Amino acid sequence: IDARDRMALDDLLEPLHGADIADLIEQITEFQRLTLVELWSGNIDGEILSELDEGLREELLSSLPAEDVAEAVRELDTDDVVDLIENLDDQSQAGVILGALDDADRVAVEQALTFPEYSAGRLMQREVVIAPSFWTVGQAIDHLRTAEELPEQFYHVILTDPRMRPVGHVTLGKILSSPRDMPLADIEEDSFRTFEATDPEAEVAYAFNQYHLISAAVVDEDDRLLGVITIDDAMSVLDEEAEEDILRLAGVDSEGSLSDRTLGTVRRRFPWLGVNLVTSILASLVIAQFDAVITEIVALAVLMPIVASMGGNAGTQSLTVAVRALATRDLTGANVWRVIRREVMAGLINGVAFAIVMGIVGVIWFGNPMLGAVIGVAMVINLGVAGLAGVGIPVVLEKVGVDPALASGAFVTTVTDVVGFFAFLGLAALWLL
Amino acid sequence: IDARDRMALDDLLEPLHGADIADLIEQITEFQRLTLVELWSGNIDGEILSELDEGLREELLSSLPAEDVAEAVRELDTDDVVDLIENLDDQSQAGVILGALDDADRVAVEQALTFPEYSAGRLMQREVVIAPSFWTVGQAIDHLRTAEELPEQFYHVILTDPRMRPVGHVTLGKILSSPRDMPLADIEEDSFRTFEATDPEAEVAYAFNQYHLISAAVVDEDDRLLGVITIDDAMSVLDEEAEEDILRLAGVDSEGSLSDRTLGTVRRRFPWLGVNLVTSILASLVIAQFDAVITEIVALAVLMPIVASMGGNAGTQSLTVAVRALATRDLTGANVWRVIRREVMAGLINGVAFAIVMGIVGVIWFGNPMLGAVIGVAMVINLGVAGLAGVGIPVVLEKVGVDPALASGAFVTTVTDVVGFFAFLGLAALWLL
Repeated sequence: IDARDRMALDDLLEPLHGADIADLIEQITEFQRLTLVELWSGNIDGEILSELDEGLREELLSSLPAEDVAEAVRELDTDDVVDLIENLDDQSQAGVILGALDDADRVAVEQALTFPEYSAGRLMQREVVIAPSFWTVGQAIDHLRTAEELPEQFYHVILTDPRMRPVGHVTLGKILSSPRDMPLADIEEDSFRTFEATDPEAEVAYAFNQYHLISAAVVDEDDRLLGVITIDDAMSVLDEEAEEDILRLAGVDSEGSLSDRTLGTVRRRFPWLGVNLVTSILASLVIAQFDAVITEIVALAVLMPIVASMGGNAGTQSLTVAVRALATRDLTGANVWRVIRREVMAGLINGVAFAIVMGIVGVIWFGNPMLGAVIGVAMVINLGVAGLAGVGIPVVLEKVGVDPALASGAFVTTVTDVVGFFAFLGLAALWLL
Repeated sequence: IDARDRMALDDLLEPLHGADIADLIEQITEFQRLTLVELWSGNIDGEILSELDEGLREELLSSLPAEDVAEAVRELDTDDVVDLIENLDDQSQAGVILGALDDADRVAVEQALTFPEYSAGRLMQREVVIAPSFWTVGQAIDHLRTAEELPEQFYHVILTDPRMRPVGHVTLGKILSSPRDMPLADIEEDSFRTFEATDPEAEVAYAFNQYHLISAAVVDEDDRLLGVITIDDAMSVLDEEAEEDILRLAGVDSEGSLSDRTLGTVRRRFPWLGVNLVTSILASLVIAQFDAVITEIVALAVLMPIVASMGGNAGTQSLTVAVRALATRDLTGANVWRVIRREVMAGLINGVAFAIVMGIVGVIWFGNPMLGAVIGVAMVINLGVAGLAGVGIPVVLEKVGVDPALASGAFVTTVTDVVGFFAFLGLAALWLL
């Protein structure tokens, strides 16, 4: 493809959707990327830019001529421009982009940037369709027909009072299916909700999902209309939040992406591995207390990772369920004790089941019934503790304001390792020596 | 609250959104739930039912009087009824619900149920708004004003040819802002996409997210219009898929929920713990090969979990990134080798960093430089292998058609455990004895 054939490239990329072209740019090598930009820079439009990964976007912006960037940016809605600018490390690029906008858009973008990151104010677009609440369907239609500039996509007409405070909204479907003399106020939706510009975007996404919203008005502290958030923005936020939780649970910093370089990857993985090193040394210290027992019965060294590993797995199961339930607000003060009780009971019951299996394995493998008993009892203890720690630790972390997805894993596996080794080797010291 | 005070309950629940009431029902105890149903059954509407967890919904349906269920169901769109019925284990309940519908809706629901589970056909609603492609804006508006029954929410008018094949669609915003004599064909969107009824819902959700769709037509194998899928349905699917990946990565069966009972939880956790038991016994077998070395140098037993645990963590990091990249289609044949190379390199570099740290710890703790060297080299080997297995295993599983989120974890930790113990104890046997 990259035989520097401009025409072939045009034929190939022209029919594709911006999001697909962005994916393609992410997947080719760096050298191919530079060639592509060189050959095709005039065609890289705002949509492609706003679909690109943050890291690549910056790289691409710096290699594109300023006028191409300006042209690409001008066609975007203000919320996409905000998204573009807020992730730029390089302030001069932000200047170029802002300079390319017309005055009204620039003011809108600059105002949006005054709201905190990850807030409704950053997510909203300024382009809104409003009508006074005393208008009729006919007046609204006439207004829309003569309006100069309408948003790319809109789903509601927002009704406002004379002081620009939103008081309700009407779906376009209702407007289209009602007679011209119908007052807008008579066909407004009863599910009208507004957000404050400073509301966190996670709250907004949650509400969109929970109440099946399509678009919602954003207001300032005086309840005046600032802009509107549409469902596609809420959908991306929801998607990002879930993605973040998945990666954080595995101890991966969520800012990374597949097109990062090796050193960036190393840096992002390092902290979590460091935490894990400290916690596994803690577990080793527990083992070190029992080195005399291990020298006596080497079978203990062979079997001890099983107890710890089963506890770690059971703990991770409980933990993941708890972290997700906290994120989706299914786990609250009202049911936390019931959930903890259930997880502990489930751990104990599974513990007994596997204790029986491992007890038998212990007897067959090492011909020692007491060794089977030791591993069995240790397993029951550790799986019960795993259930308790798996729910308890994320709940406590959430209470003290730490993201449970990020930190719970390290705590829970430390608990199950320490308890697992201690219970197994401790019981062995008591019963087998 | 549950002092059996009907009036207070009314006051409390009436202003709430159905989704919030469903959440409330999920969080109270079983006894409170029964009381609530007894007092308030007439008010439980279709919306609450369709927001409830599957398990609870069935419980609730069986305790509600048939006529209340019938009334609740009648107000739902067909896609919500399909969702309700497809998750019922009890066929007689499905019969009651179908019986409550009017004929047209019943046929629609029954037809939807003929499509495979998790397909576009199950997700779509039958209520569509169509117009012949030769109509003008004025004709469409007049048609909408006189139409008897319109869907609750709709965002496009779908243009069809005389054989009911969709040929394009027009946004309501465009219709509202165009003069009455404008032909609909002149203002249709260029991003029109249709899905086949048999397309998997995951594909549909991916396309909605990738191309920022709001609604899309569903067709049969002859390209004739069957129904329409709206973004809120796609959003729930996307949400469920991410949720499923999170839970599967942790080895939790995704059909469960917080309001399950203990025994259900035990059953759902058991299989994964069983797999883990087998893999950890495998690791133990490796350790057993070296029991003579461990008896000689008990420090090995103390330190060996550190090597395995670091490998397991690094493997889980790579694995999670790879599984998500496969799910979002960022990881393809085009970049898989580059990603594997990056992960292995990142693993090796982090391995060297931690090897130095652990080498020093080994020397200080046990005063034995060779022991430090052994743990250091084993760490480098295991973290490199973790990077390779972390990406390679999910990619291979995906190729052979197994869900990588479900199965990769067990394989990757087996590899890192076995390699970790083998490298550490094997090197110790070579260098320290």
